[in-house]
Amino acid sequence: MRVGSRDLRTIWADGDAVAVIDQTRLPHALEILHWRTLDDAVAGIRNMVVRGAPLIGVAGAYGLALALRADSSDASLARAAAALLAARPTAVNLRWALERARDAVASQPASQRADIAWDEAARMADEDCATCEAIGRHGSALLRATAETRGRVDVLTHCNAGWLATVDWGTALSPVYAAHRAGIDVHVWVDETRPRNQGASLTAWELAQEGIPHTLIVDNAGGHLMQQGRVDLVLVGSDRTTATGDVCNKIGTYLKALAAHDNGVRFYAALPASTIDFRLRDGRAIPIEERGAEEVTHITGVDARGATSTVRIVTDGTVAANWAFDVTPSRLVTGLVTERGLCEASEAGIRGLFPDLVEAVA
Amino acid sequence: MRVGSRDLRTIWADGDAVAVIDQTRLPHALEILHWRTLDDAVAGIRNMVVRGAPLIGVAGAYGLALALRADSSDASLARAAAALLAARPTAVNLRWALERARDAVASQPASQRADIAWDEAARMADEDCATCEAIGRHGSALLRATAETRGRVDVLTHCNAGWLATVDWGTALSPVYAAHRAGIDVHVWVDETRPRNQGASLTAWELAQEGIPHTLIVDNAGGHLMQQGRVDLVLVGSDRTTATGDVCNKIGTYLKALAAHDNGVRFYAALPASTIDFRLRDGRAIPIEERGAEEVTHITGVDARGATSTVRIVTDGTVAANWAFDVTPSRLVTGLVTERGLCEASEAGIRGLFPDLVEAVA
Repeated sequence: MRVGSRDLRTIWADGDAVAVIDQTRLPHALEILHWRTLDDAVAGIRNMVVRGAPLIGVAGAYGLALALRADSSDASLARAAAALLAARPTAVNLRWALERARDAVASQPASQRADIAWDEAARMADEDCATCEAIGRHGSALLRATAETRGRVDVLTHCNAGWLATVDWGTALSPVYAAHRAGIDVHVWVDETRPRNQGASLTAWELAQEGIPHTLIVDNAGGHLMQQGRVDLVLVGSDRTTATGDVCNKIGTYLKALAAHDNGVRFYAALPASTIDFRLRDGRAIPIEERGAEEVTHITGVDARGATSTVRIVTDGTVAANWAFDVTPSRLVTGLVTERGLCEASEAGIRGLFPDLVEAVA
Repeated sequence: MRVGSRDLRTIWADGDAVAVIDQTRLPHALEILHWRTLDDAVAGIRNMVVRGAPLIGVAGAYGLALALRADSSDASLARAAAALLAARPTAVNLRWALERARDAVASQPASQRADIAWDEAARMADEDCATCEAIGRHGSALLRATAETRGRVDVLTHCNAGWLATVDWGTALSPVYAAHRAGIDVHVWVDETRPRNQGASLTAWELAQEGIPHTLIVDNAGGHLMQQGRVDLVLVGSDRTTATGDVCNKIGTYLKALAAHDNGVRFYAALPASTIDFRLRDGRAIPIEERGAEEVTHITGVDARGATSTVRIVTDGTVAANWAFDVTPSRLVTGLVTERGLCEASEAGIRGLFPDLVEAVA
C-alpha cells in the first residue's frame, strides 16, 4: 500500500536480501531492514520487526531460503525450521508456512534447494496479497451498501489487521482500502488497542499514508460511539477462528462485539481461511497467551526533544497481568469476510464456503 | 486512609492553610500543597491537583473561605464563587458546594464570614467522610457474602472512585476497604482507565498503600476475565445517576457492564445521593464532556533516569477524539450502593431509599 509517494509491501525480495519494514520503529520512523542470514530473520521475527500471522509465515519461509543459501543440507534445513519456529512458538501460520516451504524443497537436490525455497516464499507472499485483496473486494460491498444509504460509512476497528499484519492489503482494513479507492466516503474509528497500541501506532499510520480519514480513540470509547449511532459497522481481524465461528482476536475485541450487539451495529471478522481451525468447535478451548507485565506498566513514545523514550506509567512494583487475546462467541458475530466471500459465523456458514477444507479434516 | 505509616485525607485544614495531596504527582511522588489564597484554590481545582466530584466540592468551599479571609465583602464573595465555578464548570458538586457555603455566610456580618465559611467547609468534609464510610459499610456486605461462599472475593473496578476522589474512604472502593479491614480476603482487578489512567495511577496506588492485593489490567481485559469466571462483582462509581438508575461514569464503564451482564457477574455502582439527579429520567440526556486530544496522544511517566517525562505515543498530526464519560443504562446495573443502603437501579428502588429527596424535587 501507499507510504508517502511509494507503494510498499511489508516484505519483499531485494536482490539477494529480504527487505522488511521495521514495525518496531513505526509510527515514528519508516526504516527498511535487509535480512541476509537466517539469524537476521530469526531475530526479526522474535523482536516483532515483523508481526501479524500472515506476514510471519512469509517471513519464516524467506528465512528458510536464506538458511539454505548458506548450507543446503538436510541438517541445515531442520535446524533452520526449528530456529524460526522457536522465534514465535505460538504463531500457527509460521508452522504452516515452514512446513509448506520444507515440503517444497525436501525431495529436491541440495544444489537447487535455496532457489526453490526462495521462489516458494515469493509465491506465498503473492498468494497472501491475492487472498487479502479478495477479502477487501468482498468486504467493501458491505461498506458500499451503507454509503449508498447514508452517504458515508463509519467503521470501527480494533488492533491492526491492516496491510502491516499481512504482506499487503490486510484483512479487516482491506475492505476499507478497497472502498476508499472506489470513491466511497469512509471514515475509521481506530481503537488504540492497549497495551501494545497497535491501533495508535500502526493502523492510524497506515490509514494516514493512504489518505483515509480516521480518528484515534481509547479502547474505552467504542461503546459510547455505538450508543450515539456513530458506528455503522465493526471490522476486526482474527488470529484463530473455530469451525463454528468463534473468533479469537486481540484482547478487547469481545467488549466491542458486546457493544455492537447491544446497539444493533453489525460486527464482522475479516480473515483468510488459513486462520480457521477446522478441528476446533469451541473458542473457549483456545489457550490465551499471557505476555509480560512491562507491556502494561511501560510505554514508548517520543519525548519533547524528539528522542524515543520509554517511560514507566505506574508506581514501581505494581503487579500487572497481560492477556493478549480474547474469544468472541459466534452469537455476537454478524458474519465472516473471507477470500471466498461472506458467510454466517456458524458451522453451516463456514461449511458452505469451504466444503473442501471442512472435508479435508473430516 | 493509610499512606505509608500515616493516615491521610485528601484535604484538611492545616493552621491557616488548606492542605491537599497533589494528585497530579501521584503515583510517582506524594506531595502536600498548602493553599493560602483563593488563587491557589482556583488553580488547584483547574489543574486537577484535586479531582473527583465530592472532593472538588469541599475544595471549592475551602477556596471560598480563603477568599473571605482576604476580603469578606459581598463583592468578594460573588467574585470568588464565580472564579471557583469557572475552574471546573461541568462539576455539579462544585456548584452545589459553593451554593451551600455561600448560603451559610451571605446573611452573616462580614467580620464573621471567613470563620463561618471555614467551619462550613470542614463540616462538608466530615459529612463526605461519613457518607463514604456508610457506603463502605453497606457495600462490604456484598463482598462478605461472596467470601463466605468462595473463601475470597475478586472485585473489578474502573477508574478511581477511591478515597482520592472524595475526602476519605471513596465510593466504589469504600466497600473494599471496609471488607479488607474486616479480614475478608479481597483482591481487586484495576482497569488502567485510559486516557488519564486514573486506575493505574491512583487506584493501584491507593490499594498498595492500604495493603490490599490488586492486579493492574488494561481496559480491554475485563471481558476476558469475566468469561473466565475470575470476577465476582464489578464496583464502579458514578458521576451522575438518573432518577431511573442510569449511571454516567468514566468512559468504558458501559463496556464492563455489558460484559458483566453477558457473564452473569453482578455490577454495582456506589454513589452518594448527591450524585443522583432526581430531575433526570433518561441517561441519554446527559451531555458527555469532550476533552483534549493530547490526553490520548501523549502520556506521562518516569523515564529510565527517574525523571518525569511526557511522550507522544502516536505519529505527529494524528487526530484523536476524547469523550470522558459514557452512560450505562439501568438494565445493566444490578444495584446501587448508597449511604442509606443498597437499592435496585430503578425509579422504585431509588424512591424507596430516598423518598424525601424524590419528594423535594416533585
